[in-house]
Amino acid sequence: MRELLSTGGREVKEILVAEHLGASDVVDEILELARRGSVPVRETNRAALGRLAGLDVHQGVLAIAEPLRARELDDLAKPGDGGPATLVALDGVTDPHNVGAVLRSAESAGATGGVLARHGGPPVTATVAKAAAGAIEHLPLASVARIPAALERLRASGLWIVGLDADGDSPLFGLELLTEPVVLVLGAEGAGLSRLSRERCDVVASIPRKGQTASLNVSAAAALACYEVLRVRGD
Amino acid sequence: MRELLSTGGREVKEILVAEHLGASDVVDEILELARRGSVPVRETNRAALGRLAGLDVHQGVLAIAEPLRARELDDLAKPGDGGPATLVALDGVTDPHNVGAVLRSAESAGATGGVLARHGGPPVTATVAKAAAGAIEHLPLASVARIPAALERLRASGLWIVGLDADGDSPLFGLELLTEPVVLVLGAEGAGLSRLSRERCDVVASIPRKGQTASLNVSAAAALACYEVLRVRGD
Repeated sequence: MRELLSTGGREVKEILVAEHLGASDVVDEILELARRGSVPVRETNRAALGRLAGLDVHQGVLAIAEPLRARELDDLAKPGDGGPATLVALDGVTDPHNVGAVLRSAESAGATGGVLARHGGPPVTATVAKAAAGAIEHLPLASVARIPAALERLRASGLWIVGLDADGDSPLFGLELLTEPVVLVLGAEGAGLSRLSRERCDVVASIPRKGQTASLNVSAAAALACYEVLRVRGD
Repeated sequence: MRELLSTGGREVKEILVAEHLGASDVVDEILELARRGSVPVRETNRAALGRLAGLDVHQGVLAIAEPLRARELDDLAKPGDGGPATLVALDGVTDPHNVGAVLRSAESAGATGGVLARHGGPPVTATVAKAAAGAIEHLPLASVARIPAALERLRASGLWIVGLDADGDSPLFGLELLTEPVVLVLGAEGAGLSRLSRERCDVVASIPRKGQTASLNVSAAAALACYEVLRVRGD
C-alpha cells in the first residue's frame, strides 16, 4: 500500500483503517502518505474491512483505489529505458500467492512487464497484490484472453519466446538468445508449460537442478531467469 | 510425502487416509509406495486428520513418521560429495511458509545443509515440511540455540560467513569468496540480518536490485545465492 500511495500511478479514493488499530511504523507511514496525497481516511470495524478486502489476514488498513490499468500487449513489447523488453508470461499459474510472488520476483529482478491470462488464472486480487509486495504498482501488466495467442502476437512484435520447464532442452544459464527482447514463459508448478504454449516457444530452457527436490518454486525460477537475462546482456 | 516414503531416510509408522478420499495420481503413488515399504495404511475422518496434521489445508493423507533427525553442526561443516560445504542459515525467519520455501530453494539449488534456530524460528512443523515440498528429506538440517553462536562455531570449522542483506557492501554476483566453504546467512524479510549475526559475517553481500520493489522474497534470494555459489565454483 505504501507503493500504491507513493507511486501515484493510480488514484486512491479512500483509506479505511480498522478501529482500535495500534500504532505501528507501517501504519503511521501510510497515514502520512495519505495526508500528503489528500486521501480521505475513515475508521471502520475490522470484520467489515476483512469482507471488503476479501482477505482473512490483513493488517487493518485498506485502500480503495481505481483499478490497475491493464496495458496493451504491444506496448509491453517495446524496448524499455534499460534496453530490450523482458516480459514474464504466466501460463496456468493459478494460485494467487504464486502469481503475486512471481510478479514481485520479476519486478525486483528487472523485468519490464508481465502477461497474465484472463482465463485459467486469477485476476489481480487483493491476495495477488499483497503477495506482490508493491510490485504491481511498478510492473506494467497486460491481461490477455489466452497465453498461446499472446505469445504469437509478441513474436510478431519481435520478441523471442523462451519457455522455462524442468525438462527443457537448453540450460538457462548462459543462453545467448536472452540478449534479444524476450518473453519468459513460466508454467504451473507440477504441470509445467501447457502443450499449446510450449509449441510456441523458440527455446524451452531449464534451470539445472542440483538437488533431489522436484523443482524450484515458480517465483524463485522467475527471479533466476530475469537475473540471467541481465547477466547475459551484461547489465 | 512421496519424498518421505521413497527416500527411506526415516521410518514411517503409519499412513492415515481420509475416508471417501477420491482417487488421484498422487494418492495412488503414495499408497503404492506405502505398500512397497510395508507401511500400514488406515482410514480416518477428515477432521481428525486436520487436527493431527495441524494444518487447515491438507490433501487427505497424513504420514506418521519418526521425527526428522537433526544433524550436528560440525557434520554439516564437512565437505560434501560435490565439494565444499554450502550451508544456508536462517536468522529470524519466522514464517513457516518462508522457512519451508527457503529450504526447498536451497536444496534444489545445491546447498549441502541448513541451519535453523530453535528459538526465534519455528520448528520443522507440518507447514514447513509442506512448503519445503520434500526438501527436508534430503537437506541435512541442524537445529541450534542461537544463530550468531552457530556462525562462530562454523567459522572455527573453516567456513566463511556470508550474510545477505539489501544494504550489503559487496555485490553477490561474482563474489570470489564463494569458492570457499560458506554459510549463507539470510535474514527476516523487512528486518534483514540481526545485528549479532551481521557482526559475525566476513562479508555482507547484496543482490543488486533492478526494479523498484523493496526486495526479493527470501526463498528467491536463497535460490540466487546458492546458484551463484555453483557458478563461482564452476560447477
